[in-house]
Formats: sequence, C-alpha cells, structure tokens
Amino acid sequence: MLKELIAKIQPLNKTAMAAAQERQNMLTKPAGSLGRLEELSIQIAGITGQAIPEIKDKVIITMAGDHGVVAEGVSAFPQEVTPQMVLNFLYEGAAINALAKHVGARITIVDMGVAAEMEAHPLLVNKKIAKGTANITKGAAMTPEQAEKAILAGVEVVEAEIAKGLDIVGTGDMGIGNTTPSAAIAAALTGSAPAKLAGRGTGVDDAGLQRKIDAIERALEINKPDPKDGLDVLAKVGGFEIAGLAGVILGAAAHRKPVMVDGFISTAAAMIAVAIAPAVRPYLISAHRSQESGHQQMIEWLGLNPLVDLDFRLGEGTGAALGISLAEAACKVLAEMATFAEAGVSDKE
Amino acid sequence: MLKELIAKIQPLNKTAMAAAQERQNMLTKPAGSLGRLEELSIQIAGITGQAIPEIKDKVIITMAGDHGVVAEGVSAFPQEVTPQMVLNFLYEGAAINALAKHVGARITIVDMGVAAEMEAHPLLVNKKIAKGTANITKGAAMTPEQAEKAILAGVEVVEAEIAKGLDIVGTGDMGIGNTTPSAAIAAALTGSAPAKLAGRGTGVDDAGLQRKIDAIERALEINKPDPKDGLDVLAKVGGFEIAGLAGVILGAAAHRKPVMVDGFISTAAAMIAVAIAPAVRPYLISAHRSQESGHQQMIEWLGLNPLVDLDFRLGEGTGAALGISLAEAACKVLAEMATFAEAGVSDKE
Repeated sequence: MLKELIAKIQPLNKTAMAAAQERQNMLTKPAGSLGRLEELSIQIAGITGQAIPEIKDKVIITMAGDHGVVAEGVSAFPQEVTPQMVLNFLYEGAAINALAKHVGARITIVDMGVAAEMEAHPLLVNKKIAKGTANITKGAAMTPEQAEKAILAGVEVVEAEIAKGLDIVGTGDMGIGNTTPSAAIAAALTGSAPAKLAGRGTGVDDAGLQRKIDAIERALEINKPDPKDGLDVLAKVGGFEIAGLAGVILGAAAHRKPVMVDGFISTAAAMIAVAIAPAVRPYLISAHRSQESGHQQMIEWLGLNPLVDLDFRLGEGTGAALGISLAEAACKVLAEMATFAEAGVSDKE
Repeated sequence: MLKELIAKIQPLNKTAMAAAQERQNMLTKPAGSLGRLEELSIQIAGITGQAIPEIKDKVIITMAGDHGVVAEGVSAFPQEVTPQMVLNFLYEGAAINALAKHVGARITIVDMGVAAEMEAHPLLVNKKIAKGTANITKGAAMTPEQAEKAILAGVEVVEAEIAKGLDIVGTGDMGIGNTTPSAAIAAALTGSAPAKLAGRGTGVDDAGLQRKIDAIERALEINKPDPKDGLDVLAKVGGFEIAGLAGVILGAAAHRKPVMVDGFISTAAAMIAVAIAPAVRPYLISAHRSQESGHQQMIEWLGLNPLVDLDFRLGEGTGAALGISLAEAACKVLAEMATFAEAGVSDKE
C-alpha cells in the first residue's frame, strides 16, 4: 500500500509553473519585486497543476505521541504534559489554536501514540499505535510493522481532510521528548554528530542537553539505523507522531497538495518522507527556521529555504500556520492583481 | 505645531510591558518559545499602555509623490507610472490591495505631491504640496515651509484615521525615483557613502545605478544637509511622500499607536521622524528587510530588527501588510491562550 502511494507522487506541473511565472511578470509591479511570495505562487502552481491556484481550505494536522526515551531525562517537561496539551488543543487554549484561527485554518488533532488513555472527543482523531514508543537507547522505538501502520494512518488522516476540502496542509506535533528522536533521525540521515543536532528543546539545562546527546549516541549505536532506508530509520529511532506526519506529507504529495512544514519535529518527518520517496521534496514548503539548533542542517539536507525566522521553538504547527497565511497571500497576489495592460500602467522603459 | 506634537510623544508604558511579559510566561508554552511574536506583543503593550492589547482596526497609509531627480535618469520606469499606480490602488489592482485585503487592513491613498492633476476620487486624500519635488542635484527638493507643511499633512491623515478607529498603522509609498531621495536621506544621516546606500530600485541597470550614485553625491554636495537637523535633511534631499510618512509616524507615536514600517522608502521616512523626535523610535516595528541594498544600514541606524525577509523590493506598504498580520497574531496569542493553571497543564519541572 505504501509502495502504491509512493508511485502516485508525480513531478510538479511545468506548464502551470511557466504560466504562473509569465503572469507574475505581467502584473503591475517590477518583475520579481515580491520575491519569495512570487516563487511560492509558482511552486504552488506546479504542485496543484493550476496556473492560478487558489488557497481557501487550510488545514493544520497536529499529531501527538509519547517517547520512551524520556526515561533518560531528556526533556524539561514531564510526560503527562503530552495528554494535557492534547486537551488544551481540544479546548482551544494553545498557541496553535490562536494562530490557526488567526489565519483561518482548521485544526485536526490526532492521537498517534500518547502514553495515556485519551477520552473520546469529537475533535480528536484516534490513530493510537501504542502508548508511546520504546526507549530508543535500549532498542528500536517501534517495530517495522508499527512504523508502516503509523505512516498509513497519517495518509488516512490527510485523505479524510482532502475529502472535506483541503488546498494546503500544515504539519504540527506535540510530544514531550520528541526533539530527541527528531535529532536522532537527522543524525542518522545526515551522518552528522548528535552533538551538532541536539538542542535545548523546551528548555533543558546543560546537564539535560548532555543527557540528550548521550541518549542519541546510544540510540544510534544500539539500533544502527540504515541511512538508505527511511522506514528503518523511522522504526529504530523515530516516533509515532513523526511517522504519522510523514504519512500526511506523502499522502498530500500523492494528491498534489502543498505541504507547509513546521519546525524541528515536522522537518524530521519531512526527512523521513523524502528518504522513503524522494519525489515528495518539491511538494514541501519550509514555514520557518526553528530556533532549535540542528534545524538548519536538516533544512539543508532537504534543500529547503524557510520562509521566515521568528525564533520559534514551539512546534504544534505554529510556524506552519503563519506560513500558510503567506502561501495564501502569494496565491492572492497572483490571482487578484491587475496586469500592466489591464490597469493602463506603463511598463519598464 | 510640530513642536507641540513632538512634546506629546511619551516613553513606552513599563507597567503594561511587565504585565504582558508576566502573562507570556504563564501561557501554555515554554517561556519564550514564540520568540519574536512574544517580543512584539510586549512592545505593543508598552506602546498602547494595555497589558493585553487588541489589534482590530488595521490601516495602511500609502502616500504618493514625484521627484525632480528623475530627470537624471535614476529610475527604470517613467514618471507617468506614479499617477497610473495611484489609479491602480484606487481600482484595487495593485499588490498592496491584494495584501491589505488578505490581512484585513483598510488602505488610505494620499496624493502628497504627484506631478500630475489627479481627478477627485472618494478614496483619494488630496494633500498635494506641489507637483513633484525640485531636482535635488540642482538645489533643495522643497522649501523648509513645504517640508513642515507636508509633515503636518501626514499628521492630519493619521489623526483622521485614528478618529475612524486605528489600532496599528502601516506605512506605504509610491513615487517613481523615490529610492534616490531615500538613499540620499540615509547617506546624510548615517554619513555612509551613497555608493553603499543606493540600490537598483525597480530595476535599473549598471549605468542607471551609477547615474543614481552620482546624483546622490551631487545632491549632498550642493545641498549640504545638516545631519543633526532632520527637517533640513528632509527639505534638501527628501520627498513629499517621505515627509508625509514621517508625519504619519510622528502622529501615530503621539497617539500611542504602533507603526509598522515598510521597506526602503518608509524606513527613510522613519529616519527623518527619529531625527526630528528621537522618542518615536520605540513606536516603530520594522516589517521586513528590503532587498534594496542599503536598507540594512538604515535599519541598523534605527536600531531595529525586521520581522521577516522575503526579498521584497516593492514598497506600497506590501511588507507592512504582512507585518501587521504578525502583530495581530502576537496580540491574539497573548490574549487568547490559556495559562498553565487555566488549562491544568504541568509547568516545567
């Protein structure tokens, strides 16, 4: 099933991109003067196959999961915060609620592997694979079967959203300790040292950061993830929400939908998606540069250039929300502006 | 009258800023994890004096003017484009129309000194000082009386908008050739060489750029603007739209309203405002880093740090529109998020 999905991911539509580029040059502004917004409109034209794409239905998918590696003292917050924050999302008290509402996006909250019983809630999608991953310093985070199941659950979630109407999807995460598996994924795929990829997450002190680096080093040593096999890296040192987000990304690309990638954890999920299916890369837009050290290397590995740098280090999809608004702005500029001819404005001499 | 206005500009409200900072630390996210948005909310609390400020009425004031220095061949577009683009604004075909609508801001278009008769239009505010400035390579752009009159016209425009309801104001400009006086203002105030401040504007070639640098050098030599006297710099090498925008900035600060400063030309206006009244500085928010070379030095002189860098070089208030949306997002995060206590979320261990 995963193979079939991957085979569906097509290159961008060059004809639509050329038409969008041509229109940008005819609009009443010096050619190229809206910089990144012009590029973004052309990329989205290529993704959707529409010369003048429209972004109306905006969705942020925020996936939650817990991590056995928290036993190693890698996080500044206790694990109980994961289910507490899921409830906070459902009752609209979190940053992602304020920012998604601000940009007119709807949010879907998914339990991919929270280490607690979550009461049923009409807004909570239950795709729980297990109550948290195993401790990656002692063995694999999950079985290969769980990894594939989690990815396919992510595909199902995004396909359900596409059925409701989706013009762009933003990724978001919640999971105490999840900067550790994300940095481990980055270390496995880039070959860079854990010390260069691990950061302070939600705010660990120097000793906590050292525990985190040690944990990643031990996880890589005991698991020996194969950098040529994205599914292997995911199963050995990943997380359920990361797997689900990789599925969201793959599913969105298969349906020609642009993906607004949030920060550190979402970027790790994007790396897994690209490792599994390199054709997914042009469907990705990096929303923002995370303050979490190591993000830059991940972005470079993906060949992306974040839209903004606002010193965010929160996750949840908060950066993606702002990026979605920029993507919508980019498409509105392309669609709504008058051309030189229409407005009777003289072009460059 | 200008002196009275300047005397009204007060320091930021420290009590409101401390309350906003305290609330940010209680909200359900790691302290500081929304980076620049948190800082922005605290600045706006200090500006408005409200511990939880609200941004509802958003206004972009786009001022147009022409420049005698275009006779020196400093622009890639002909001067007739200034009135043509003013009409394009009024008929909603320009980039600023699309972007202002996207962020829910209203636009006010002001003729400060377009070198053409503009037909009356219900959306066009007529504050024309003269039909374009004089050629700054031959003498002063305007008289000191015109400079003061233009600033006060800007104050009137923003006060009229405040009367209608205004929680934040963005600055915007239109004026063929206006990167030349803007770079001249920057050179006069920073003492830096014109060659380091002049850029390609709407897209001049190498020969055009050299003519521009020469024109600025001659303008500074013949006019000898006094860097300690903002009004003198404005009158000698400025422009009517730049003067009007300086008035908008001064008027907004006097009424404790945040000012979202657009790119190169608006930043030159902000420099004039700060040179005239240094107390205005903390009311300024730099929306974006312009692609126009020289902007960085102006930003540094002002001690500002642009919110985003999207390679814009258009003006009109396009960057300010996006910045206004970020300011609104910042205030919504502060106002709408639940605290750890309210949401029953465990704080850092």
